[in-house]
Amino acid sequence: MDLDLSSDSADLTASLVDVESVSGGEADLAAAIERALSDLPHLSVHSDGNAVVARTTLGRPQRVILAGHIDTVPIERNGLLRLARHRPDLLHGDLAVLMEPTGVVIEGGCQGTMRAEVTTRGKRAHSARSWMGLNAIHAAGGILDVLRSYQPRQPEVDGLTYHEGLNAVGIGGGVAGNVIPDECVVTVNYRFAPDRSEAEAAAYVREVFSGYEVEITDSAPGARPGLDHPAAATLLAAVAGVPRAKFGWTDVARFALLGMPALNYGPGDPMLAHSRDEHVPVAQIAECEATLEAWLTR
Amino acid sequence: MDLDLSSDSADLTASLVDVESVSGGEADLAAAIERALSDLPHLSVHSDGNAVVARTTLGRPQRVILAGHIDTVPIERNGLLRLARHRPDLLHGDLAVLMEPTGVVIEGGCQGTMRAEVTTRGKRAHSARSWMGLNAIHAAGGILDVLRSYQPRQPEVDGLTYHEGLNAVGIGGGVAGNVIPDECVVTVNYRFAPDRSEAEAAAYVREVFSGYEVEITDSAPGARPGLDHPAAATLLAAVAGVPRAKFGWTDVARFALLGMPALNYGPGDPMLAHSRDEHVPVAQIAECEATLEAWLTR
Repeated sequence: MDLDLSSDSADLTASLVDVESVSGGEADLAAAIERALSDLPHLSVHSDGNAVVARTTLGRPQRVILAGHIDTVPIERNGLLRLARHRPDLLHGDLAVLMEPTGVVIEGGCQGTMRAEVTTRGKRAHSARSWMGLNAIHAAGGILDVLRSYQPRQPEVDGLTYHEGLNAVGIGGGVAGNVIPDECVVTVNYRFAPDRSEAEAAAYVREVFSGYEVEITDSAPGARPGLDHPAAATLLAAVAGVPRAKFGWTDVARFALLGMPALNYGPGDPMLAHSRDEHVPVAQIAECEATLEAWLTR
Repeated sequence: MDLDLSSDSADLTASLVDVESVSGGEADLAAAIERALSDLPHLSVHSDGNAVVARTTLGRPQRVILAGHIDTVPIERNGLLRLARHRPDLLHGDLAVLMEPTGVVIEGGCQGTMRAEVTTRGKRAHSARSWMGLNAIHAAGGILDVLRSYQPRQPEVDGLTYHEGLNAVGIGGGVAGNVIPDECVVTVNYRFAPDRSEAEAAAYVREVFSGYEVEITDSAPGARPGLDHPAAATLLAAVAGVPRAKFGWTDVARFALLGMPALNYGPGDPMLAHSRDEHVPVAQIAECEATLEAWLTR
């Protein structure tokens, strides 16, 4: 598969989407991108696993990083994380723009995410004599009660309003069709605004589920909006629309950890991300291309 | 492995238990039993899959069937069911004694069992924007509410008191760690007293979970005690202790469908069946052997 970089940006997007690129299996797509970029004489191209970096060396006073992921699952496998360890020099710049779906407005910062397993324990028994046991699945009703009555925070951070969430994303329990189960595990996902650290978020989750066994299984910090940074001001001026908070976790947080301001900006409705009818309007692809080109060459 | 039928009944039990016999993998044990019984000149031995039947042909006026299962999982794979289809003549008799753990008293009849999947549906969304979706796992809290507040019936049937149960034996839901799940399935097991037919039990389960999607996935009928049958009276007289209801499903129900009275009688505490510390007191094995031998040769 060869990518034609001279084609219309919507056609090029369609070509990219047509290549299967589930996380861990995006090598073909990464290779195609690297081949296409290597033909351009003003770029030096580096690769690290399936991460591809193309850099200018034009001696300009500021450097902007445009970053996006080419696989289809976020967080779990992240080439940027590996790249930050192997070649942090390739990621150094004054501002990073994460090409996440934002509906072509600036979305500032990102919320953190944390997963925890909340477990109930019981006692096995044959289900014909259920009163001899203690049903751990029934006990998990208490965990679902907490989740059903939960009222998420909507705090304002640096002028943008975030919207938290605490949800069960998995539940599992059961030994056999005739056994009272002795364990039930509810996997919850806490999305937290960037006024909370990972440690504060973990303490909060433990407090919400006090009385239950809670194990934090993974987490990633949020990032404050950072719109007051000088490097962000020029892009804010170039993009139409009112900036808003980014609810999802994005690689903005990784750049924040590297000490760089970062914004989210890209085509596509963020409300549709990861849903069955996710799609990107062709007009927004063209708008993003035009805005970024005008801003970068100003 | 060779079984020594002349050994002490407790030693013989230990030899049987020592042979791995998980359902579907009990061929070695069945073959060993068939070999041992074939050496006895007064028995004609038949086999059907892993089911072994040894019959006398002494021309006596009544025939008693002593039946037990040699595998370690009940109901799911049942050689008796297959045998009833292939060779019903081998199962014909005046009374069947099911060698189930009863603590060496007569346990009459058995409860029926039914499994159903109770499902909630929601709408997928990215968990960072959970308010765009509808969480099916949270909705399953309503199903667990029903189960937690459920009061089981304890009806008296033909003089014996049964004890029903309605329990979750499995729960599953979840798409990915960052997705609001659109389906959650609670597998429930209803154990019902023999005053209810399978059809009545199914209608009851649907009524209890009205408002939810309910699919009956399998069921087996109960059996009334049948202690008033003349053939049962002589064994009742021979066995010490007060007869009681059998809560678990046993093959008594299969014999009831064949029109034969059947009882449960055997060593071992039924309350421990299928639990981690299930065991059989050696003295009860000897007591069962002596009682049955005296009764059969009276």
